[in-house]
Amino acid sequence: MGKLTVVGIGPGNYENMTVRADEALRACQVIVGYSVYVDLVRERYPDKEFFTTPMTKETDRCRMALERAREGASVAMVCSGDSGIYGMAGLLYQLRGEAEEPEIEVVPGLTAACSGAALLGAPLTHDFAVVSLSDRLTDWETIERRLTAAAEADLSLVLYNPASRARPDYLKRACGILLRVLPGDRPCGVARNIGRNGEGYELMDLSALENFDADMFCTVFVGNSQTRVIGGRLVTPRGYRDV
Amino acid sequence: MGKLTVVGIGPGNYENMTVRADEALRACQVIVGYSVYVDLVRERYPDKEFFTTPMTKETDRCRMALERAREGASVAMVCSGDSGIYGMAGLLYQLRGEAEEPEIEVVPGLTAACSGAALLGAPLTHDFAVVSLSDRLTDWETIERRLTAAAEADLSLVLYNPASRARPDYLKRACGILLRVLPGDRPCGVARNIGRNGEGYELMDLSALENFDADMFCTVFVGNSQTRVIGGRLVTPRGYRDV
Repeated sequence: MGKLTVVGIGPGNYENMTVRADEALRACQVIVGYSVYVDLVRERYPDKEFFTTPMTKETDRCRMALERAREGASVAMVCSGDSGIYGMAGLLYQLRGEAEEPEIEVVPGLTAACSGAALLGAPLTHDFAVVSLSDRLTDWETIERRLTAAAEADLSLVLYNPASRARPDYLKRACGILLRVLPGDRPCGVARNIGRNGEGYELMDLSALENFDADMFCTVFVGNSQTRVIGGRLVTPRGYRDV
Repeated sequence: MGKLTVVGIGPGNYENMTVRADEALRACQVIVGYSVYVDLVRERYPDKEFFTTPMTKETDRCRMALERAREGASVAMVCSGDSGIYGMAGLLYQLRGEAEEPEIEVVPGLTAACSGAALLGAPLTHDFAVVSLSDRLTDWETIERRLTAAAEADLSLVLYNPASRARPDYLKRACGILLRVLPGDRPCGVARNIGRNGEGYELMDLSALENFDADMFCTVFVGNSQTRVIGGRLVTPRGYRDV
């Protein structure tokens, strides 16, 4: 019996991988993943067997990884960002069910909330919520309810999957919902292509964010009532009284 | 003029640090931080100058780090977990204000939401909120409001700082608030001493969590309405329909 390691590779570049993720990829025999993520690691671990599936074939990909591990291979399933946060770890546990084998090890990685915030400044120094705007697996009413609740409770927000070719206007819709609760001048920011070619960020207020042309390589940050721009960075003070 | 790098070292062990964090600590001259965190890295980078302050002296610590960088030193400020999420990056930007120097670089690290979730299984595969139960810098009413909002919006929850010697009953109070909205059999979990000696986890329901004896080395996870225990792990399904 082999083993299945679910590896969060972080935003994409080697430097933002953990030592443990690197060791897991060096130690395995087979690397499985969505083709875009596998391409991020292919060059550094050239002696592996690679297996990729397209984006919407998550279940096939996970079944295959479990099957190869059952047959005796040491398999690493790579996930962009973290292996758990919107990653494949949950689906792998679901598909394994109550069986004890193959062994599954979850290796965490930097999720875009961490890596994107670091690029923008320090927008998540206080309580926050992470919400995906993709309604492929979640109905839009639930997303809307979560956005409203987070805004009303003065949580900073991180929006994953703010747009895609099939959903070009979802960030606009989300901002429209937030603007029912939050002021238009609420400081916000967008991190793009974190840890990859074209890495960058932009700061803007919530009114401008409503018309921002986001794509699937963007992670969006909406500040809480204390968030402000300091020295060109998006900063949410923690509340230290002696500053 | 030197430089100040704010380094998230992750949960504590070398394996869970990023390559970039390791490189930053190898490259710097001075390592500054809360004594407990500095002790986590002291042995691996023995040739550095170390400067530590006690837990509540965050502002002093940050002022000192900025001052050393202004004097020309290459300074690394270490933070447990991520450098931004409840970390020192925000306070450093606040204290630097609109000055352009010294340069501040934020190096993200694994926050306990990622590393703790990986230990427990996959509780954060869907939208979630992160809330600190410490009322040292936040009034309790705000914390209470955020817990209620997250529960009502069916967000999974990660609770940081669930207890300390001065606040032994805060997790109990938080669970009492959540139980006004959530059922007592809601699956939950606690990760303890992540990446350090004594690392472990426990799964329990929300009723049992109310009486759990947490300490400051615990991170607490409360599932959403879909979360369940599968094969001894806490798993929040993403919603794939072909499972």
